[in-house]
Amino acid sequence: MSARIVEVRKGVLHKNDLLAAELRDGFGRSGVFVASFVSSPGSGKTELLRQTLHLLGDGYKVATLVGDLATDNDAKRLEGAGGLVRQITTGTICHLDAAMVRSALDDWDLAALDFLFIENVGNLVCPASYDLGEALRVVLTSVTEGEDKPLKYPTIFHSADLALITKTDLADAVGFDRAAARANIAAVRPELPVLEVSARTGAGMQDWIELLLRARSRAG
Amino acid sequence: MSARIVEVRKGVLHKNDLLAAELRDGFGRSGVFVASFVSSPGSGKTELLRQTLHLLGDGYKVATLVGDLATDNDAKRLEGAGGLVRQITTGTICHLDAAMVRSALDDWDLAALDFLFIENVGNLVCPASYDLGEALRVVLTSVTEGEDKPLKYPTIFHSADLALITKTDLADAVGFDRAAARANIAAVRPELPVLEVSARTGAGMQDWIELLLRARSRAG
Repeated sequence: MSARIVEVRKGVLHKNDLLAAELRDGFGRSGVFVASFVSSPGSGKTELLRQTLHLLGDGYKVATLVGDLATDNDAKRLEGAGGLVRQITTGTICHLDAAMVRSALDDWDLAALDFLFIENVGNLVCPASYDLGEALRVVLTSVTEGEDKPLKYPTIFHSADLALITKTDLADAVGFDRAAARANIAAVRPELPVLEVSARTGAGMQDWIELLLRARSRAG
Repeated sequence: MSARIVEVRKGVLHKNDLLAAELRDGFGRSGVFVASFVSSPGSGKTELLRQTLHLLGDGYKVATLVGDLATDNDAKRLEGAGGLVRQITTGTICHLDAAMVRSALDDWDLAALDFLFIENVGNLVCPASYDLGEALRVVLTSVTEGEDKPLKYPTIFHSADLALITKTDLADAVGFDRAAARANIAAVRPELPVLEVSARTGAGMQDWIELLLRARSRAG
């Protein structure tokens, strides 16, 4: 990148950081636990959220923002799964930012919510740099993507609080090397918690829900 | 994006377009056919290239550039498959640009080559805007990513000359809806040729090689 674009980018990121800090304060005051989800396109963010909404059930008030360049397919997939859903379309922009999140929250009463989930645009690079004010950032990597994504896209793993290895029901079909995948995550972020889940079969999903509820209790 | 960053980005893209046009002229004069490959992380670009190098065999002189944020894993995977290989690491940048390609070509004798393959950073957004001087841009989308990626990431499909649906050996395991995937590609780019391949089983690979050879003949 040219020196000029680096300088402008720094300004944009600084502005985003300030706005994200404001959002985080507001979320804390409202008592809503905010988790965001980042991954490649097709790692299974929406399906994970659909099953998460189902498993949380009626006992929790949940709202979900979903980001994509185009379409409201993901919002449609989540409607009926539970709670409020709103799609953010970014046009040609490869990530959500704090301003988009603030605009999308608009008329929602945060104080009435237990959880706010934010599904980012499918991208293993751009979302890494943009704080959205979330309390928990979850990076998903599916078994079908191979084992070396943490090594090739270290920045997004550095920015995350939890890694979910998804689509484990396909592990055998793709010859997934579980030990290598875990070793690669550990090489980049030794302290990053890792869970293995299949939203399709439900394997590991109860552990994920428990982690989410514990994280909320600790934050509250 | 702010008005200021849009303006700077336009300048960067304009400069890239000029350099890409220079590269394209040079490739044409040297008689090397240049194909680039874009997709999500984990769609199988490197494995497609490995099998492509193998199938092209000793009859063609081939060189490959592979882009990643970090590691030279992909270059290592391609070494021994045939021809010259060089890794470009982009740091935090989510795409290759024409200047990176020019630098990486460095001491290679283009006139001695039949094909130059350029594997972009795994990303369905950023690479769309950066012309690399290639004659053929191939977008890969694997069956494990689901059917709606063309609708959600239209820009990259608009920028491509060919779509490859990859990992078709996993289609049944993931419940891939072939007709829906093709309809979604056609909805975004009605005229875009589509091939279905499995680099693992070899299904469709001969059609892909023939298309590549025909495209080279036409260009020559």
